[in-house]
Amino acid sequence: MRIVVLTGGIGGAKFLVGAREYARRTGAELTAVVNVGDDVILHGLRISPDLDSVMYTLGGGADPERGWGRVGETWAVKNELAAYQAEPTWFGLGDRDVATHLVRTTMLNAGYPLSAVTEALCARWQPGLRLLPATDDRLETHVVVSDPGPGPGPGQGQGQGQGQGSGQGQEQGPDAGGERAIHFQEWWVRHRGALPTHRFVFVGAAQAKPAAGVLDALAAADVVLIAPSNPVVSIAPVLAVPGIREALAGNPAPVVGVSPIIGDAPVRGMADRCLAVLGEPCTAAGVAALYGARRAGGLLDGWLVDPVDEVTRVDGIEVRAVPLWMSDAAATAAMVGAAIELAGRPTGVAG
Amino acid sequence: MRIVVLTGGIGGAKFLVGAREYARRTGAELTAVVNVGDDVILHGLRISPDLDSVMYTLGGGADPERGWGRVGETWAVKNELAAYQAEPTWFGLGDRDVATHLVRTTMLNAGYPLSAVTEALCARWQPGLRLLPATDDRLETHVVVSDPGPGPGPGQGQGQGQGQGSGQGQEQGPDAGGERAIHFQEWWVRHRGALPTHRFVFVGAAQAKPAAGVLDALAAADVVLIAPSNPVVSIAPVLAVPGIREALAGNPAPVVGVSPIIGDAPVRGMADRCLAVLGEPCTAAGVAALYGARRAGGLLDGWLVDPVDEVTRVDGIEVRAVPLWMSDAAATAAMVGAAIELAGRPTGVAG
Repeated sequence: MRIVVLTGGIGGAKFLVGAREYARRTGAELTAVVNVGDDVILHGLRISPDLDSVMYTLGGGADPERGWGRVGETWAVKNELAAYQAEPTWFGLGDRDVATHLVRTTMLNAGYPLSAVTEALCARWQPGLRLLPATDDRLETHVVVSDPGPGPGPGQGQGQGQGQGSGQGQEQGPDAGGERAIHFQEWWVRHRGALPTHRFVFVGAAQAKPAAGVLDALAAADVVLIAPSNPVVSIAPVLAVPGIREALAGNPAPVVGVSPIIGDAPVRGMADRCLAVLGEPCTAAGVAALYGARRAGGLLDGWLVDPVDEVTRVDGIEVRAVPLWMSDAAATAAMVGAAIELAGRPTGVAG
Repeated sequence: MRIVVLTGGIGGAKFLVGAREYARRTGAELTAVVNVGDDVILHGLRISPDLDSVMYTLGGGADPERGWGRVGETWAVKNELAAYQAEPTWFGLGDRDVATHLVRTTMLNAGYPLSAVTEALCARWQPGLRLLPATDDRLETHVVVSDPGPGPGPGQGQGQGQGQGSGQGQEQGPDAGGERAIHFQEWWVRHRGALPTHRFVFVGAAQAKPAAGVLDALAAADVVLIAPSNPVVSIAPVLAVPGIREALAGNPAPVVGVSPIIGDAPVRGMADRCLAVLGEPCTAAGVAALYGARRAGGLLDGWLVDPVDEVTRVDGIEVRAVPLWMSDAAATAAMVGAAIELAGRPTGVAG
């Protein structure tokens, strides 16, 4: 059996640990198609946070406490860059991590596509699955926020809501003189998403092509899983690459998603903030509705929710309730098995 | 008084500590024109070892034990690059050092010339002098060695001198199928200069222009000092930039050099190996003769030697013997004072 997982973020990496466990037990082939919208060039280094999270987590090099980056990480480079006052200083660029970015940047500058670079990096990490970026082209998630103007910097705007901003529409922040697009990393890491936010834009998506191997993997898939990743900034940028959504829609392989929301809250990360920007409810049923039923032009055939959410149906989508806490690889593998079963495929897992 | 020092290498940085001490005491203005022939791009990073040695040493950030790089240095990036099997693995790329290279590389890629980048880096280090690269253009010292061929790698050639190589000319190494040019850093750091070596080539020198500020500094100089740096690979690449040697020859300012050789041995580094490649003697008088007398089309008006060398005259060059061991800043400042005095300028130093 061939399983393809669309994924992004830390939760996605954790899900893949279970998917790999399931694949090992059943002899399935596993491919991950990973979000690159979080990718950014800082200090001349091409950083691919989601690809690296998968690589480090499945390769045994991730920091289990912090949840991101390398275990045993040190911060000499970051501290020195700050001493040079080299901006940005808010990004957590670890020393071990820097080496990954140096190899990636050097290979990209030499003309290798990101998919080939990722394969080369995986020669070291041996993640036990095929790891593909959604696209080899540059695709960056930017966030349109209210421009705080030349006054006190973001995060220091204690006087918000007073003065000339009052009486304006709700979408436009009270301190806004206009809108400004910032990179997702700046919004997420620097501002913790706590800015008046209007929308997400996937810069470059319209011109992007699926990375080498992505369409072939989807065409050969027996089942496609949507990881419990942030639907707005992890999965949506993957689907924004022209050709990927079409391949899913036209495929015989069923598509089953796993809810990233348990008990009306994100399992981790800031899906609640992101869904609020879209005006969507932060619920398991809400995310399923956002993805939509494949038979109605959407994404999903099936949807796994946690029992606590008591969701029994979403229009046109088969729903099943199973425990969704990814407490360990075995629990997560059981989730994957339930998703495969929901897809109408033999699970291969006893019981 | 305006003092310009042509310099390179660790010895040159140490000399500048004394020159700065002398300049502080006397109110002189100090400019260093620094070799860039050791510069290299590794892992996509532009590394300028000689500029950094000056910056770190005069800025209080150098490692006094190791003699190069940063004090308190760590090696996570280097170890990780090795884990990726990213070549070269023989270069000592410290974590703190990497931050300097990231800032430099980012600025160079943004279009700033090396002289402007160096000024920006010095805003942090405050070296207490004006630090100029010899050129803003790419100039790399390469070393032509005997090609060891596809056999055992360099440094493992235990069978040298046996077999098909015998009977060939002395210049061509016994195991050579031909010649090969390698970067100076590979020759120096990886092979410790222990390869059959034919000559040094300053790649790019013919097209290089003096960096912004260099010719102005030389034109305004009251005295030019040649640091006790390696004459073959530290000073010669500076002089290889068209316009610099001409500026020295046509200047009213006297040029005084300080011998890097004491007791027929280099104070530090591998000047002996480099001089041997040129077929020149490793002596204080030999280096002076290599530089030549300015009145005879060469470089020097004066030459400082250590008393142990008992050199009393070199054709056309004023020679003076003073202790040349740079044991501390005060001793080195005294050397600088003696050089200024030899140049026929008031020393400003009591006694």
